[in-house]
Amino acid sequence: MHGKTSRTQGNIPTLADVAKHARVSTATVSRCLNTPDRVVEETRKRVMAAVNELGYSPNFSARALAARRTNTIGAIIPTMENAIFARGLQAFQEELRQSGLTLLVASSSYRPDLEEEQIRTLVARGADALLLIGHHRDPRIYDFLDKRGVPVLIAWAYDEKATKPSIGFDNRAAMAKIAQVAIAMGHSEIGAISAERADNDRARDRVAGIRDAMAANGLVPDELALIETPYSIENGRRVFRQLMALSPRPTVVICGNDVLAVGALQMADEIGLRVTQDVSITGFDDIELASVAHPPLTTVHVPHRDMGRDAARLLINMLGGQSQTASVELATDIRMRGTLGPPPA
Amino acid sequence: MHGKTSRTQGNIPTLADVAKHARVSTATVSRCLNTPDRVVEETRKRVMAAVNELGYSPNFSARALAARRTNTIGAIIPTMENAIFARGLQAFQEELRQSGLTLLVASSSYRPDLEEEQIRTLVARGADALLLIGHHRDPRIYDFLDKRGVPVLIAWAYDEKATKPSIGFDNRAAMAKIAQVAIAMGHSEIGAISAERADNDRARDRVAGIRDAMAANGLVPDELALIETPYSIENGRRVFRQLMALSPRPTVVICGNDVLAVGALQMADEIGLRVTQDVSITGFDDIELASVAHPPLTTVHVPHRDMGRDAARLLINMLGGQSQTASVELATDIRMRGTLGPPPA
Repeated sequence: MHGKTSRTQGNIPTLADVAKHARVSTATVSRCLNTPDRVVEETRKRVMAAVNELGYSPNFSARALAARRTNTIGAIIPTMENAIFARGLQAFQEELRQSGLTLLVASSSYRPDLEEEQIRTLVARGADALLLIGHHRDPRIYDFLDKRGVPVLIAWAYDEKATKPSIGFDNRAAMAKIAQVAIAMGHSEIGAISAERADNDRARDRVAGIRDAMAANGLVPDELALIETPYSIENGRRVFRQLMALSPRPTVVICGNDVLAVGALQMADEIGLRVTQDVSITGFDDIELASVAHPPLTTVHVPHRDMGRDAARLLINMLGGQSQTASVELATDIRMRGTLGPPPA
Repeated sequence: MHGKTSRTQGNIPTLADVAKHARVSTATVSRCLNTPDRVVEETRKRVMAAVNELGYSPNFSARALAARRTNTIGAIIPTMENAIFARGLQAFQEELRQSGLTLLVASSSYRPDLEEEQIRTLVARGADALLLIGHHRDPRIYDFLDKRGVPVLIAWAYDEKATKPSIGFDNRAAMAKIAQVAIAMGHSEIGAISAERADNDRARDRVAGIRDAMAANGLVPDELALIETPYSIENGRRVFRQLMALSPRPTVVICGNDVLAVGALQMADEIGLRVTQDVSITGFDDIELASVAHPPLTTVHVPHRDMGRDAARLLINMLGGQSQTASVELATDIRMRGTLGPPPA
């Protein structure tokens, strides 16, 4: 018996469990599920009661049941829009594929309640392991996954002290680095557009990184002109305009991701501000939008493909019973393009 | 009654609608659905006819187990990259969510063999229904789904004669329209960059649409300078350069989607060709990349959000037992921006 089988035993009920519980043969259970009309009603009721009570899911193929493996991996990402997670996920899937694993993806719309529901759905549907984005979630979710014996890997964030292994980068340090470059160029009036931080540890860390750089350079972190808004080009446009109405007006706007930054760039053009002569704008992620934008966006490059590929390898190791999986930190770097320069004289 | 209920009332029938239609009480409708044995056959037949006619879906959560429902819908898209399917899928999910359904997505990398595997995985994992992209696939896959009683809706393509109901647009007519505009401006040397057409009916239809417009205007369809390549900015760049080396050189390059067109725009800039003075370039889809590109891309606008939302409503009706689901055709339109103009004199 290899580790995996014994680990999940007792969690996922088998056809035999149902048969035993209902005091019938496994053939009778099969008939109840497949051709219920051909089973006496009393028996059928007893079997279905056992199915319900044990939480048996009849849809597993025979082989999967035997191996207790479904060869299905689940991933839950905050959004399918804007391609923020797309490239990493595609690489993740391609690597899983090489090991014969199928990826099923759900999108939580950045809502913890939906994410929890999707985690339960994926586990109920037999996911062998899960990839989740960021560490922050209710501890009872991790308890649930531990009890069900479902390995979890966290991506898009790195924290060696967290309870679950992770692969990603230090969001705080990465954002501090680009803020440091801006400050070194002479910027002291700093604006920021961030995603809502309440349930998003990556967004929290990135804002903290800007404040770290301010503090390290003798600026007052509390003076950061910060506005939160969900990621979208439209929101980037709107919030950038709000920041430009402040007095003193920020000379650089550090955006929580490229999507917001592209909106900021569009609005700068619309209200007649020249980038970088009048205002500088930076992004985070380096998705395709960043290079296509005009001018091309200065941003923090995240190695999405490497992260996706290595996440798959780690998860496959975890499935293989490797219980002590070390977290992996990936490097980010700054791509200097056309949108960050010295402040106006 | 709060707003949401009344808004969806016209689209999603309620228990009360069924009761009224069948001229019985709501309690009788409930009995017909939950304990049909306890209802007189004549009444039951009338109620079930009303259920089918209106496309009523019984309350999912309460009846899921009894009805063998998992409240999980599967969707398989050709790629997660490039956000081609992202916006429509996000709207699809949001609408499903309102009915308590969870969406699981797989991505086939445009490979029919992977798609088939994913279809089988989603069915094995208990998907109640599937959304698939395009009509073209091995007939035995549809047989398999029919035998398993899994409703299928096709999106991103419309064909009322196909075996499965679909929601989408006429790819051929939409592409013919933008080609017609280019030809009317005076272009006669026409180049095209298409996705590989072998397993992609949308790509086939779009190329056929260009040829339709050529034929309708006295040009020779076989003289279309066509190169196939997988969708990516990089491939768009590379193939555009190949097209520009042809003699005679195309004066307009009609691209199979926005991603290819953005690559073409970048390469035009790199090799010193002015858009539109030296060459015109068009896209298809109108994803965010199209507006962000420089200059903004003239393209065929596809109503992704509407398509996603309406696809969810159709699929919910199909789940409710509405066997005769009519296909829905959505309109596309041309967004004239900065990349299509008359040919050089």
